[in-house]
Amino acid sequence: MDAEEGLRRLRALGFGEADAAELWAHFDEAERRGKRSHGHARLPWLERLDGFDPAAEPVLVEDEAGFQRWHGNGAVGYLTLARAVGHQLADPPGHARLVVCDRAFPTGMLGHHTRRLALGGLVALLTATSPRRLGHPQGGPKLASTSPLSVAVPSSGGDPVVADVSMAAVTWGDVVAGLASEEQLVPFGGDQAHKAFALAVALQLLVDALVREPGHGAVLLVARPEADPVPALRRLAGGVRLPGDA
Amino acid sequence: MDAEEGLRRLRALGFGEADAAELWAHFDEAERRGKRSHGHARLPWLERLDGFDPAAEPVLVEDEAGFQRWHGNGAVGYLTLARAVGHQLADPPGHARLVVCDRAFPTGMLGHHTRRLALGGLVALLTATSPRRLGHPQGGPKLASTSPLSVAVPSSGGDPVVADVSMAAVTWGDVVAGLASEEQLVPFGGDQAHKAFALAVALQLLVDALVREPGHGAVLLVARPEADPVPALRRLAGGVRLPGDA
Repeated sequence: MDAEEGLRRLRALGFGEADAAELWAHFDEAERRGKRSHGHARLPWLERLDGFDPAAEPVLVEDEAGFQRWHGNGAVGYLTLARAVGHQLADPPGHARLVVCDRAFPTGMLGHHTRRLALGGLVALLTATSPRRLGHPQGGPKLASTSPLSVAVPSSGGDPVVADVSMAAVTWGDVVAGLASEEQLVPFGGDQAHKAFALAVALQLLVDALVREPGHGAVLLVARPEADPVPALRRLAGGVRLPGDA
Repeated sequence: MDAEEGLRRLRALGFGEADAAELWAHFDEAERRGKRSHGHARLPWLERLDGFDPAAEPVLVEDEAGFQRWHGNGAVGYLTLARAVGHQLADPPGHARLVVCDRAFPTGMLGHHTRRLALGGLVALLTATSPRRLGHPQGGPKLASTSPLSVAVPSSGGDPVVADVSMAAVTWGDVVAGLASEEQLVPFGGDQAHKAFALAVALQLLVDALVREPGHGAVLLVARPEADPVPALRRLAGGVRLPGDA
């Protein structure tokens, strides 16, 4: 799929020009980074998704020193996070700000959002919930979403480090596409999968404890850096690929 | 080792009564939870450790809405975090607060600190740095500390969920004790160890970007919960063990 087709189909869904461009940029970045379950395939998925309003505007419902709460207000989660991120870049915190997004789903490839913040000079940590798909490694009911965690740190070299890790061994998108079985959708880590399970459960609860409205949401921490550790780490790493590098 | 011996040896190192009790409670909880590398063995380790002052008092050097910075001021990291945690419990944030601890080492079993916060009704997320011991799964220089991440969420039932996960497959303590080889000290996850590596590097950089003084530190997020998701998750889980359960 090329940009022309992608943008045309997004506009046909009712999205305005700027929102269509943001959504296309998100899907296309995911596709290029090899995170295909968040890539172009999300467009036909969105064409079948019910329950969002392409004209809805996410709302900043609480705004205090060090804290904001946003509400999706019927928008797709991609755009709720895009608005929240744009706001941080336009009005960065003095030191740090916790940003809770109620009713934000789907939020896509979290590294897309944290990378924007890091490129704008802010440290970011982001997690988000989705349907429960992970059980305990030893079996039992599905207790946690895949609970991705993304952490991005800016660099004076313009090359931030951006980790974006799902706690699942395979993606739900791969299951839907028939590339993996539902039995493979377990916490990653093999004989140490209890670690990814623990993180998945706790990150799910972190979001669930901070949202006001039941439903999927996101929790974002943004902070102004005091130091610039990435260039020195890149020197130490030599040619070793760091998280988020192409 | 029993409490009487532990407390006696801690006092002999110069710690006051309350600090000796806090340190013993930390080591003993780690021992009981099976995290022995943070347990009783830390007492002889502390007896050989240079560069800390048992009488030093950690200092709150910045305090604004939503943000605090502490400095260890020569104290052991256990006590720097204990002071910072005590302060959050005595004076909780209106919504959320990022707490950066400069010069905090060693910080021990992070779940000890986040559990205290969750038992006091606060959501907590904590990570900390230590010497670089993890390289890329495919080899190369040591780039990241074991970068533990702990997340704790309170419960109206009095039984918080407390995840406390190191990104390493074995502990440094196990290597020191001869229970594991240094070659086994790699990111956990087997053929998906790139995920734990990504988190380890990014969490290390998160701390390194937020401290003002070079050296090991800790980053703690505390927030007031808006909801109480743990009891419902425990019902859903049935008998499945959740993170931090005995």
